[in-house]
Amino acid sequence: MSARRRRLRLNAFLMEAGHHEAAWRLPHSNPRADFDLQHWIELAQLAESATFDSLFLADGPALIGTGEFRPPGQLEPLTLLTVLSQATSRIGLIATVSSTYNEPYNLARRLASVDHVSGGRAGWNIVTSAGADEAANFGLDDRPGHAERYARADEFLKVAKALWDSWEREAVVADKGTGRYADPARLHRLGHRGRYFKVAGPLNVERPPQGYPLLVQAGSSEDGKDFAARHAEAVFTAHTTYERAAAFYADIKARTRAAGRDPDGIVVLPGIVPYIGSTEAEARALARQFDELRVPEYGLRQLAAVFETEPSVFDLDKPLPDAVLARPKLEGSQSRSDLITELAVREKLTVRQIISRLGGGRGHFEFVGTPEQVADTIITWFEGGAADGFNIMAPALPSGLTAFIDHVLPILRGKGLFREEYEGTTLREHYGLPVPSNQFHQTQATFQVSGA
Amino acid sequence: MSARRRRLRLNAFLMEAGHHEAAWRLPHSNPRADFDLQHWIELAQLAESATFDSLFLADGPALIGTGEFRPPGQLEPLTLLTVLSQATSRIGLIATVSSTYNEPYNLARRLASVDHVSGGRAGWNIVTSAGADEAANFGLDDRPGHAERYARADEFLKVAKALWDSWEREAVVADKGTGRYADPARLHRLGHRGRYFKVAGPLNVERPPQGYPLLVQAGSSEDGKDFAARHAEAVFTAHTTYERAAAFYADIKARTRAAGRDPDGIVVLPGIVPYIGSTEAEARALARQFDELRVPEYGLRQLAAVFETEPSVFDLDKPLPDAVLARPKLEGSQSRSDLITELAVREKLTVRQIISRLGGGRGHFEFVGTPEQVADTIITWFEGGAADGFNIMAPALPSGLTAFIDHVLPILRGKGLFREEYEGTTLREHYGLPVPSNQFHQTQATFQVSGA
Repeated sequence: MSARRRRLRLNAFLMEAGHHEAAWRLPHSNPRADFDLQHWIELAQLAESATFDSLFLADGPALIGTGEFRPPGQLEPLTLLTVLSQATSRIGLIATVSSTYNEPYNLARRLASVDHVSGGRAGWNIVTSAGADEAANFGLDDRPGHAERYARADEFLKVAKALWDSWEREAVVADKGTGRYADPARLHRLGHRGRYFKVAGPLNVERPPQGYPLLVQAGSSEDGKDFAARHAEAVFTAHTTYERAAAFYADIKARTRAAGRDPDGIVVLPGIVPYIGSTEAEARALARQFDELRVPEYGLRQLAAVFETEPSVFDLDKPLPDAVLARPKLEGSQSRSDLITELAVREKLTVRQIISRLGGGRGHFEFVGTPEQVADTIITWFEGGAADGFNIMAPALPSGLTAFIDHVLPILRGKGLFREEYEGTTLREHYGLPVPSNQFHQTQATFQVSGA
Repeated sequence: MSARRRRLRLNAFLMEAGHHEAAWRLPHSNPRADFDLQHWIELAQLAESATFDSLFLADGPALIGTGEFRPPGQLEPLTLLTVLSQATSRIGLIATVSSTYNEPYNLARRLASVDHVSGGRAGWNIVTSAGADEAANFGLDDRPGHAERYARADEFLKVAKALWDSWEREAVVADKGTGRYADPARLHRLGHRGRYFKVAGPLNVERPPQGYPLLVQAGSSEDGKDFAARHAEAVFTAHTTYERAAAFYADIKARTRAAGRDPDGIVVLPGIVPYIGSTEAEARALARQFDELRVPEYGLRQLAAVFETEPSVFDLDKPLPDAVLARPKLEGSQSRSDLITELAVREKLTVRQIISRLGGGRGHFEFVGTPEQVADTIITWFEGGAADGFNIMAPALPSGLTAFIDHVLPILRGKGLFREEYEGTTLREHYGLPVPSNQFHQTQATFQVSGA
């Protein structure tokens, strides 16, 4: 046991009017939340006022669906994080950005810049972009395969880390007297020539305050878990039962150890979609209100998209068809389709029931109950070895986040499991993770200021 | 004559401690200005307090030089503009971004996002990235040729404009009652398949407030001028004499007319580096102070870089060598090398004198004089048909910008040539330019809300 008590990590996963697909239809929702800056600033300040470790924005470089039943766009997330960095001072700021559809030089630079302007609060959720619709915006007639995307991501990370390291801390001398600005020997060229990238370097941005932005990963396929074990410092994951979450947790920690890393250096955060009521009946009524606002056609299309098929193959009042169950591994979102299949078979759900269950969290853990029940569940998962913290996915925003903050957090704080105030200023400090050492660090300066 | 008096457009070209290569060495300069957010915020607020039309950040995706004698890096400019958008409310925000080393989908989205978060104040200075050092950060052993880069930029603009247009204004219905969010028929696919890009679309960001960000261009080669005539709404340019500026101005306006556009729809802004003193002697002393802080080796390296040769070919006390003068057209920065050659031959300058003349503005128009003399020159160029306004490149920042604002602007305002207060809120409004029409705009709605 470490002398210091293990603390819960809490991430506020923000999403326009909320995580439930029909959140925008609630009477008090702002249906144009996606492009309303004030909405995002208020959410960020709300999460910061509650000392959340971080907030998180999901993303993909393509329109989301057809737009017919749900807001289909959003501000580019690093731009939005940059805005939020100026409206907050302590909360960590994590965004999803694709390693498949970006160049390492550009993205390493942008992430370093966000880390600078936020004073060390940037995090990068690395995704490899499974969608065919994304591929079609980047010159590809079909998306690259699963293994290919992860191989590229691996090399991308290697290059990005070297770019972030390319300015040693002592590189800038800025000697007004002699006119020497920097020591070129401490601005490192990479000369990287790999399978996917050739990058000369150095980066044209000083090493960011956190060394690297916090590296986050959310893919739960075999490739995804191995990638997380090699690179990730936080993992967002989706599980609908404690047993599945505990198995995943043990698996990720074991893989991380096998990759030669400290398993405490990777923070596992399952998602939870809490429907909170002061009584169980009230919580159920709240969940029902969301369910009644769903457009069934939307859910069918979403389900078809996950299984890469047409909506017409499904019958709302029957189980998943055999043709879907028998499909080979998909090149796209493997873990999401596996998770839904597992849930549907285990609980013998009809398609209609599956869609209803997925409405709020797209496969994440929906929990309907009182604040005490939500807190008990969080504590059970946390203390039982299924989570290091949680990714809080409020079904409606801001109301669901406010309910969590006002009613669940006091219980967790009362048990000493969550901070009362921020202790650090950077995202790495909040998560208890160190600044990575610089691969180019030299113990001896090679640079002599003339006349010194 | 239009009823409304023609007004000067003024852009504040910001650059770390100033445009002079040795600005960082001045006693009051902040040598770490490049990564000091407060420095940039103060400059932006200073320019806005003086009702400048816009501020501008230059950029390239590579380290600037070796870093030995001058700050070699800077924050990624759209990230910095996003920060500045939150610290200001009216001034236009223009950044350089490469069309050669970005994907249209990503960049169109980022620029649209900056336009959204700034309330319609974004501008894009389109560059094609001439440098071999830039190419080496993006997998290329040599940079693409001049014509190739401009051909790609042309197609890039076509795709970007279609992406910005892909959401019609009436696309979002957001009908809470029926659950219909958007009209898919008003979210347009591009299905673009060109020489350089295949992009499906639509963009996942709503059409920006300005329709498109203000499109700016600064290349002055033949390809560059033709590109400007087709696409640009503002042109940054470098001239060292009135005659050259007037010829360029007439040329750009004629090319714009020939391209089928209104010549008033392109605003020509030469750069000026003003050394301002209350007397001529004081101004000369100020310029000398900068000159004495130069490191000659730095100037030689810069000159060699422009001519794509080695510093050793130059003799400080002789004119440009014949080998340099006789070189064929360069693939890189053609207009810059032509401009320097022309200046050197016309004024019979030695290499040392060339370097001194380039120290402040890298080929831009340096002007040493009193506020009255600076204002007279600006007015002469403006009224004589050599400029629609100026790109103000203060040799030191903030001091040079403050001097211009405190001493030159009142003269221009006294003559009714520059605004006293902002009249509009968007960058296009400041520059007197319209929101472009949407190429997908339909006069008839095709979408019927069920039951309506």
